Amino acid sequence: MMVPMVLDLVIDRADWQGFAASACITLFIGGSLLLTCWRWPIELSGRQAFILTTFSWVSVAFFASLPFHFSELHFEETDAFFEAMSALTTTGSTIMTSLETAPDGVLLWRSLLQWIGGIGIIGMGIAVLPFLRVGGMQLFRSESSDRSDKVMPRVTDLAVAIALVYVALTLLCFSLLVLSGMGVFDAVNHAMTTLSTGGFSTHDTSIGFYANPAIEWTLTAFMIAGALPFVRYISFLKGNRWALWRDPQIRVFMIFLVGVWVGFAFWLSVMNNVEPLDALRAAAFNTTSVITTTGFASADYTAWGDLAVAVFFVLTLAGGCTGSTSGAIKTFRFQIMWIVLKIQLTKLYSPNRVVPVEYDQKPLGNDVLLSVMGFIFVYGMSILFIAVLLGAFGLDLDTAVSGAATAVGNVGPGLGSTIGPAGNFASLPDAVKWILALGMMLGRLEFFTALVLLTGGFWRD
Amino acid sequence: MMVPMVLDLVIDRADWQGFAASACITLFIGGSLLLTCWRWPIELSGRQAFILTTFSWVSVAFFASLPFHFSELHFEETDAFFEAMSALTTTGSTIMTSLETAPDGVLLWRSLLQWIGGIGIIGMGIAVLPFLRVGGMQLFRSESSDRSDKVMPRVTDLAVAIALVYVALTLLCFSLLVLSGMGVFDAVNHAMTTLSTGGFSTHDTSIGFYANPAIEWTLTAFMIAGALPFVRYISFLKGNRWALWRDPQIRVFMIFLVGVWVGFAFWLSVMNNVEPLDALRAAAFNTTSVITTTGFASADYTAWGDLAVAVFFVLTLAGGCTGSTSGAIKTFRFQIMWIVLKIQLTKLYSPNRVVPVEYDQKPLGNDVLLSVMGFIFVYGMSILFIAVLLGAFGLDLDTAVSGAATAVGNVGPGLGSTIGPAGNFASLPDAVKWILALGMMLGRLEFFTALVLLTGGFWRD
Repeated sequence: MMVPMVLDLVIDRADWQGFAASACITLFIGGSLLLTCWRWPIELSGRQAFILTTFSWVSVAFFASLPFHFSELHFEETDAFFEAMSALTTTGSTIMTSLETAPDGVLLWRSLLQWIGGIGIIGMGIAVLPFLRVGGMQLFRSESSDRSDKVMPRVTDLAVAIALVYVALTLLCFSLLVLSGMGVFDAVNHAMTTLSTGGFSTHDTSIGFYANPAIEWTLTAFMIAGALPFVRYISFLKGNRWALWRDPQIRVFMIFLVGVWVGFAFWLSVMNNVEPLDALRAAAFNTTSVITTTGFASADYTAWGDLAVAVFFVLTLAGGCTGSTSGAIKTFRFQIMWIVLKIQLTKLYSPNRVVPVEYDQKPLGNDVLLSVMGFIFVYGMSILFIAVLLGAFGLDLDTAVSGAATAVGNVGPGLGSTIGPAGNFASLPDAVKWILALGMMLGRLEFFTALVLLTGGFWRD
Repeated sequence: MMVPMVLDLVIDRADWQGFAASACITLFIGGSLLLTCWRWPIELSGRQAFILTTFSWVSVAFFASLPFHFSELHFEETDAFFEAMSALTTTGSTIMTSLETAPDGVLLWRSLLQWIGGIGIIGMGIAVLPFLRVGGMQLFRSESSDRSDKVMPRVTDLAVAIALVYVALTLLCFSLLVLSGMGVFDAVNHAMTTLSTGGFSTHDTSIGFYANPAIEWTLTAFMIAGALPFVRYISFLKGNRWALWRDPQIRVFMIFLVGVWVGFAFWLSVMNNVEPLDALRAAAFNTTSVITTTGFASADYTAWGDLAVAVFFVLTLAGGCTGSTSGAIKTFRFQIMWIVLKIQLTKLYSPNRVVPVEYDQKPLGNDVLLSVMGFIFVYGMSILFIAVLLGAFGLDLDTAVSGAATAVGNVGPGLGSTIGPAGNFASLPDAVKWILALGMMLGRLEFFTALVLLTGGFWRD
């Protein structure tokens, strides 16, 4: 909160008082908790880890919402919490209109929250979820525990190394954006919201404002960088030159991404009569934005026709790689599903054949298969359940289903005239904003971390 | 084909010639195949069973489409095949308009196809799919094989008994419809399309035409009868008075159904100011129609507001019980998923606990769990894939997604102004009709039966 406060002081905007007040409240409550508890040794049981993970998202979002509330824009409680949760979960859905005239401090605060949320999510994906065995993430335990192919001796070293990579990539993105012609303040904000695959912009028309191919290609590259598993960067820097390409998740993700680019660009240039290179840029930027769950837009892609709408809806479910800042279902789960289906089809005609079940040369246990499939089922059911709730509050089917999908996938824009890439979440009823904020958190916690708290057995035993 | 031909001869319509021609063609080709092959002994391998099951649906639909083509309505090839496939799979989507003036023979032919398709689907669900181990159906093997709790000594006896129950229920439905005030011809048609959960009507406004509560409640009861596992009727008739209620699938299905009735009726009466009893009837009839995958409508329920649209979309995915004429995902798969999720949540906080995995007092193997989850995944992916294809042919997202869901679920109506309950499939492009017809067949074959034919290994080994 001090960073945007200093900015507001420098540019002489009264908003600095809001940040100062928020900082005082947060410091007071945080300090009180620390002072009353610091003598107790910290020994987390598995159950406490679930409770802590879930409630830290809620409480951090609450404190992060204070500056929005106290700023000169005077957000309502609902709007402030929605914006804070959307930022921290790197979703990027916004209730802010007229971004061009918004105070710089508030814009920077949103971007900072996404950037901090992004590194938090990488950490959770590497150090927390694999050990809680949520959604098949136990598969990635080895990446931070003592196995033969370990990339770093200790978890803290790994955390520091990943944080350094995250900062370095953000600085590189910032530099390239400035070189491409973006202003310094905009470049700072966009660099942070790109690496975190968050997608907040400083303009109402998002990246379409610049109409600058260099900026779009730069952002495309760094959205991809943010959606790759960060442990692979460490392996790469430690001298394993093929670390990125050897990861089957990265390989499949990149092949899928380029396939979507080419197919969509071809369709755009043939059906909508767009120049091939412009079509490739528009296709690459906007599909990458949705697949990596960033949520920038260089144009209102829902105006490109019915196929585009259907494709962008499906891409909203995809996601990047595990261990990145990206959300949604994610590549490795589709790979596991593909393996399961191949085996099932083979067993239909050769019931007694023994088929090895492997991913990245590691055997896959039944627990991983069931976790991954359970995750995808809960993912789909959550979207349907939230969509019905949104329908009850008067949202049409397109808005309800795409709003639910964009929230739990932490993407950002939905479909339809209200919440589409050219729209805004401001006009939605308050109840809908709370439901969507809850959906964003559920998606970030990969559902099971939060759902386990709703079971009786968790509290009883 | 002789039945509608005789009808047309009796009422003196020239259409009898179309049925006669179709019958000759079918007899000639069928007779030729029989004469050239009858000396060979029939010994089906597992692979041949997959091929036979898939191709018999295609070829039966082809021959069933001939009378539509030769009738005085002169259906195009695409329309004739679509209508025949929609009938045989008991889907009930139609390309026919002006049903009131359509020849009686054609109307009867559509209803007959649904009725024959219905009994075929029960047979496939009891005798074929469990042995092909498709979509977790291996769980129901015991119901027709030699186990201690067998209901009938031999499969042929069981088939005859089920056919008799099917005929008896159809006659009962017919009688009650006539008593409720429906004309004899309409009652014959609706009795057949109700028990088969098909949903073809003889009126453009479906059951809304009659505006008759007795008819609606009668049809509601028999749609449910068609959506229950038919083997349980046999157990019941053999003296096991609790056979129906003891089946966990039936219990959960009925509780879900009544829950939806009450919730939806409450919402209708409060929000739309409908009289409570009228609301209950409208809610019960239309939700049962969609849940059992019948597809009748007593009103344009998509005009009841955004919540209704979202709810009917979700209900399109539900389905009745396995071993019935009903389609879609079906109750037992949701029960299995619920069991899997409960175990997964428990294992999150008690990793070492041994949890018994049982359904209906039978242990559930991992193969059943994986099959069921694989089925649901393929089900969802198929809807998304077909929706993207339909988007490419210019259908808006609501029409594309609901069209895909209603086809693979064999429900009938979709959402939106074109294919909604007040709409019609006639105006869709030909390519879309072929895709939807393929979707209906895939849904009926529970996907894997057909998809296995697309794997290289199936043909190679």
